[in-house]
Amino acid sequence: MTAVSITAPGCALPLADSERVQLGHGSGGKLSAALIRDRFLPHIGNAILAEAGDGAIISLGGAELVVSTDTFVVSPLEFPGGNIGALAVHGTLNDVAMMGATPAYITAGFVLEEGLSLELLDRVIATMAECTRQAGVPLIAGDTKVVERGKADGLYINTTGIGLVDPAFRPGPRRALPGDVILVSAPIGRHGMAIMAVREGLEFESSIVSDTANLTPLVAALRRAAGDAVAVLRDPTRGGLASALNEIAQASGVGMAIEEASLPVPTEVAAACEMLGLDPMYVANEGVLVAIVRPERATAALDAMRAHPLGTQAAAIGRVVTTNPGYVVLKTVVGGNRIVDLLPGDQLPRIC
Amino acid sequence: MTAVSITAPGCALPLADSERVQLGHGSGGKLSAALIRDRFLPHIGNAILAEAGDGAIISLGGAELVVSTDTFVVSPLEFPGGNIGALAVHGTLNDVAMMGATPAYITAGFVLEEGLSLELLDRVIATMAECTRQAGVPLIAGDTKVVERGKADGLYINTTGIGLVDPAFRPGPRRALPGDVILVSAPIGRHGMAIMAVREGLEFESSIVSDTANLTPLVAALRRAAGDAVAVLRDPTRGGLASALNEIAQASGVGMAIEEASLPVPTEVAAACEMLGLDPMYVANEGVLVAIVRPERATAALDAMRAHPLGTQAAAIGRVVTTNPGYVVLKTVVGGNRIVDLLPGDQLPRIC
Repeated sequence: MTAVSITAPGCALPLADSERVQLGHGSGGKLSAALIRDRFLPHIGNAILAEAGDGAIISLGGAELVVSTDTFVVSPLEFPGGNIGALAVHGTLNDVAMMGATPAYITAGFVLEEGLSLELLDRVIATMAECTRQAGVPLIAGDTKVVERGKADGLYINTTGIGLVDPAFRPGPRRALPGDVILVSAPIGRHGMAIMAVREGLEFESSIVSDTANLTPLVAALRRAAGDAVAVLRDPTRGGLASALNEIAQASGVGMAIEEASLPVPTEVAAACEMLGLDPMYVANEGVLVAIVRPERATAALDAMRAHPLGTQAAAIGRVVTTNPGYVVLKTVVGGNRIVDLLPGDQLPRIC
Repeated sequence: MTAVSITAPGCALPLADSERVQLGHGSGGKLSAALIRDRFLPHIGNAILAEAGDGAIISLGGAELVVSTDTFVVSPLEFPGGNIGALAVHGTLNDVAMMGATPAYITAGFVLEEGLSLELLDRVIATMAECTRQAGVPLIAGDTKVVERGKADGLYINTTGIGLVDPAFRPGPRRALPGDVILVSAPIGRHGMAIMAVREGLEFESSIVSDTANLTPLVAALRRAAGDAVAVLRDPTRGGLASALNEIAQASGVGMAIEEASLPVPTEVAAACEMLGLDPMYVANEGVLVAIVRPERATAALDAMRAHPLGTQAAAIGRVVTTNPGYVVLKTVVGGNRIVDLLPGDQLPRIC
């Protein structure tokens, strides 16, 4: 075969417009990180924001609190296993819980598009009510705005959660140490693929159900079993397990060695991902947590998760290592190693 | 002239669709109230939410806090005197301050439309940074989502504010008593008319500037001057002064007697309102507060406001009365009385 010389084309290729917001800026990947780093932090950076956990730790009136905010723009609004209301409650409560705090209160701000079915709105609010009741976290303040037809996509919801810090339980993204064991609480990829199935009208639709769940009780079980040996907690939502592990590796300045064979990927998720050309490690989860635990308590932590309904299929998927600091390296089932990088942009837009 | 018999038309008039969200549901008027009452509270009602102030009062870790959340969808994003970022910071800090609390922290959740100019986003974030710095209230947590072109209108921002309650200063919408004096801190109608001028491309555009401001220092001055004699504080934003007074009248079960001649309406606002057929009492303000003060401290409160840069044109506009409980009655300049009702729907959509 003859070597082919590849030269640049004579005219400029259409470049991504660097002066405008792109869908990838909302991906939870590299473009998202760049947007925060280049556009937000130079103006509004401060010590609390710089910590960049799932929530902020603040002191007020003698209390130490965690506050987390998240806006939900998932499309479609309803999907197998839940709706935008369930995500809005669970997502924010989980972010508070990942900081080791106990969620206590939640607020909600709605953007409604003119023409939205009030029946659908009713179902979403009923779900939010049910989720807050189950979590024992009252919704204490709300706001509703309406925009003209074509200026939203039915319904967007922002929720902000407030929780109380447990001084004896302080997981954080900078605390991973070489030797720590990396645990995931449940099979990955279900939320993202449930959404994709509806969007694409795929045949496997009925078999994949979103995992949306309040993870607070599972965190409580972990705390009882392993206490401060739980170094890091993270719910791998937008950007999936790969993005969560990368962020922790970078924040802690450590490497991560993951065993592909240990990853709990449901058969139907694996099949759907293959069909669509997606990697389950980048698919969003809404009822999974990653726990990075000191080795001496790792078995106790894993056992505690498996004893809980939300963690029956929990698995140890790898170790924190000194090699390749800042990187996640996957040992594949055929024995090779590959770097699991942050995606530049969007694999699945508007997944939460 | 012959009397004309008016009969119903033979075919049904197009009715407002009662099964779908309408623009008026976001007006801050009767339709908004109905949406909250009929769609939200039946599901998620609780004692804290039922208080329906500008923010919720909660206890957590021994601290008594105020939490308020608000989503901003103003169109256009930039206008004389400010932009959506200024509104998003001031609006939420003011809601916390109206509860008598001192704002301490704020969060922000962004919905960005694909294609939004990053330069514009920069300006908005720079403004938010400047506003939070001036207020001494750090932005501690944020979230960014991106939606496709045509699924938003540039940029929506939710902010949630948290403040510390002062146990000796507890204004609340239910505390107005007959005899109390009704004060407004500044001329009304500027924010709404500044927005309308840009939207309509009117000639007076340059002369009306939004009053967006952080009212916290003005509240502090009121507290020093009149303390607990300040029965009610409210910032008359969406729905304007008329809606704020109606809500207080209903919450406290009292009447309000307002003197039209005392209302501080800037000449250019009055002219613009006349041109567009609007009533300045329903036009949104973003740097005005209403204070309802016990009569013995009313003069001290008014003097304290007038001594502050944000209140130089403060005015006493009427009294709380026993007659017409739940209603606001305006004594017009020509000597008549008219009820100033809540509007059913929207006078000015997407004003904040």
